[in-house]
Amino acid sequence: MNVVDVIRVKRDGGVLSDAQIDWVLDAYVRGVVADEQMAALAMAILLRGMGPGEIARWTDAMIRSGERMDWSGVGRPTTDKHSTGGVGDKLTLPLAPTVAACGVAVPQLSGRGLGHTGGTLDKLESIPGWRAVLDRDEMRAQLAGPGAFVAAAADFIAPADRKLYALRDVTGTVESVPLIASSIMSKKIAEGTASLVLDVKAGSGAFMRDVASARELARTMVDLGDAHGVRTVALLTGMDVPLGGASGNALEVAESVDVLAGGGPADVVELTVALAREMVASAGGGSGKDPADALRDGSAMDVWRRMVAGQGGDPDAALPVARETHDVTASGSGVLTWLDAYAVGVAAWRLGAGRARKEDSVSAVAGVVLHRRPGDVVRAGESVLTLHTDDASRFAAAEQALVGAIELDGTREPLPLLVDRIPATD
Amino acid sequence: MNVVDVIRVKRDGGVLSDAQIDWVLDAYVRGVVADEQMAALAMAILLRGMGPGEIARWTDAMIRSGERMDWSGVGRPTTDKHSTGGVGDKLTLPLAPTVAACGVAVPQLSGRGLGHTGGTLDKLESIPGWRAVLDRDEMRAQLAGPGAFVAAAADFIAPADRKLYALRDVTGTVESVPLIASSIMSKKIAEGTASLVLDVKAGSGAFMRDVASARELARTMVDLGDAHGVRTVALLTGMDVPLGGASGNALEVAESVDVLAGGGPADVVELTVALAREMVASAGGGSGKDPADALRDGSAMDVWRRMVAGQGGDPDAALPVARETHDVTASGSGVLTWLDAYAVGVAAWRLGAGRARKEDSVSAVAGVVLHRRPGDVVRAGESVLTLHTDDASRFAAAEQALVGAIELDGTREPLPLLVDRIPATD
Repeated sequence: MNVVDVIRVKRDGGVLSDAQIDWVLDAYVRGVVADEQMAALAMAILLRGMGPGEIARWTDAMIRSGERMDWSGVGRPTTDKHSTGGVGDKLTLPLAPTVAACGVAVPQLSGRGLGHTGGTLDKLESIPGWRAVLDRDEMRAQLAGPGAFVAAAADFIAPADRKLYALRDVTGTVESVPLIASSIMSKKIAEGTASLVLDVKAGSGAFMRDVASARELARTMVDLGDAHGVRTVALLTGMDVPLGGASGNALEVAESVDVLAGGGPADVVELTVALAREMVASAGGGSGKDPADALRDGSAMDVWRRMVAGQGGDPDAALPVARETHDVTASGSGVLTWLDAYAVGVAAWRLGAGRARKEDSVSAVAGVVLHRRPGDVVRAGESVLTLHTDDASRFAAAEQALVGAIELDGTREPLPLLVDRIPATD
Repeated sequence: MNVVDVIRVKRDGGVLSDAQIDWVLDAYVRGVVADEQMAALAMAILLRGMGPGEIARWTDAMIRSGERMDWSGVGRPTTDKHSTGGVGDKLTLPLAPTVAACGVAVPQLSGRGLGHTGGTLDKLESIPGWRAVLDRDEMRAQLAGPGAFVAAAADFIAPADRKLYALRDVTGTVESVPLIASSIMSKKIAEGTASLVLDVKAGSGAFMRDVASARELARTMVDLGDAHGVRTVALLTGMDVPLGGASGNALEVAESVDVLAGGGPADVVELTVALAREMVASAGGGSGKDPADALRDGSAMDVWRRMVAGQGGDPDAALPVARETHDVTASGSGVLTWLDAYAVGVAAWRLGAGRARKEDSVSAVAGVVLHRRPGDVVRAGESVLTLHTDDASRFAAAEQALVGAIELDGTREPLPLLVDRIPATD
């Protein structure tokens, strides 16, 4: 097969055959198809699209480029959650132990953050001693014991996606629903979960700004999961405003521990419970315990402590705290009507919470703490949010990101927390 | 500047700024922009297009990536011709000496063939001793002496185009009018000719199959030449049927020498004279001699001999001849109505006249000789064309390429030799 012929088919608006998809991804992993050829194909896919059959085969070929894990031996049903990413989205942290406390195991392979949304592994690494890299036996032990792990994806999980994802990042070919959906789903299917709940976010701080695009992505991913025997459902959720009161690595761990202790911000609790119920239900109901009860009765907290300890972390260790803080105050008085998620995400990033390039390291302590949320009354001069960092020279750039982010008595309305539910098409 | 931002502008249908074009091509030559990034941009350009302003700047940036030569010191007006390529298109060989015989110098930087159309340098290299690589002093001496050279483009001629052209070849991004036009014109403008005549071919054996695409390409290139102070005109010519009676390297040299001797096929003579008159006129009229007279009175042949000798070739040496020949005969009787140029080009290529990859060598002797042309009466069993090669094992594949190429008493009509003339827009 000739790669230029394959590129031309998609370039000219045609449909790639199963054989062409299988060959081009395999040849790309083997280095027979060069980066520049895959980049041209990715751009053609972005601009010409792929049909459902092509997306399914593309995903399948990426899964088959590596191994598909199998947790059927652990003796519990399995489920997982994937979020398309948002500002302050720490939900995996309270969710995984909550679901495990309801009798369903959570094998989560996760990633690091790039850009304005943080990564789950970055957050957990702010816990002293916690490590992201587990071997298969350790993963199995965590599922059989506490009932959940959150670990870095191994090299044998969808290597075609790993290579393609890095390429898309530098070639302007990220923003394609077929490529995003196949990337996410190939990893989640290969990790071996039996069911999956997707948190697809829309709004200012989300990857998809509008609900229609988020819905298209959700529908594509739900259908892909279903086609691969993974029971999948998606919640469409709003991301115009940061989730919870903290954005930043250690700050979000602390907030997650509050939720596991039965407290925490109302929106984080609401979404944790909604997603946990979907996860437990998709896995057949688990022990019958309701996730809200698991948060209230301390059983989710108990799993959390065992889960953290099982990955080398000390659940009792004090989390690191920023040396410098700076308040951002209200310039007037009124009702807070908008607190822009994207602006807060960029501010946290600039304070050191995120990375611009894969090789950058992140600060555990940097981030933004919110004191007011939309609907609250604020008075001129009072603190709306506090910036945290070890490096005070970063405050100026963070404040710059927040210009116009706080709106008083405005008319825009943020999307609701729960926008819609996208079940599998039977 | 960030290359992903530049890619996104074009990907999303926007217009690249002058600064973005200048930066991206310079950064590409310097290796700061990687092949995979330029491939994604090239695909976005192919699918989204470029406006006249972008094409002009893109061409300009490619010229400025190297040097623009200057022949103002040679004491004669200069002109050149570029053909978009066709089967049997040996016209540079009779043209350059004919135009020089009329008092206008021809500084031609040319290329090698890739695919089914041959390259001018490949053809000339079948003359014993002839060499394509000249230094600047040698080029100047050829212009001042015989009045013409045909040489390989030096590394300092539009290096951005050289790198991009090789990339497009392997990434399915060749077929874009803005990229084709800027590639051709950057090289022609950089070679330093004061005026230029374009032979833009349409039809089965041409790069552009339909007249509308060829016209668009011609118009784009004429405007580019004009914008850079090079007086440019284009002839749209038909390429449904091979040009002349021979396709292959030494075979085409022999036919060219026939034309220079006052003979040769009518179509080759007609187009040589038409293009030569355009070239001489575009350069201000030269000595006033008509190109048809230069062919008749032996002065073009005299320039040819001096031009070949000046590049080390022996104009009296016998040209190499194929060891094996094979006749392709008519399967029935009737009027020949179609003799497909593309099929003949592929047959010649398979016999060894062309290369599949840049590093391949070509056979001087391989090719196809036509005995009948559309309009001729043929009888069953008589030879319509003869295949030439040193390697008889190639005949089968060449004959395979010719299946359906010869049509008797059909209804399709080949395009006329001269379709239209595209002058500069004043």
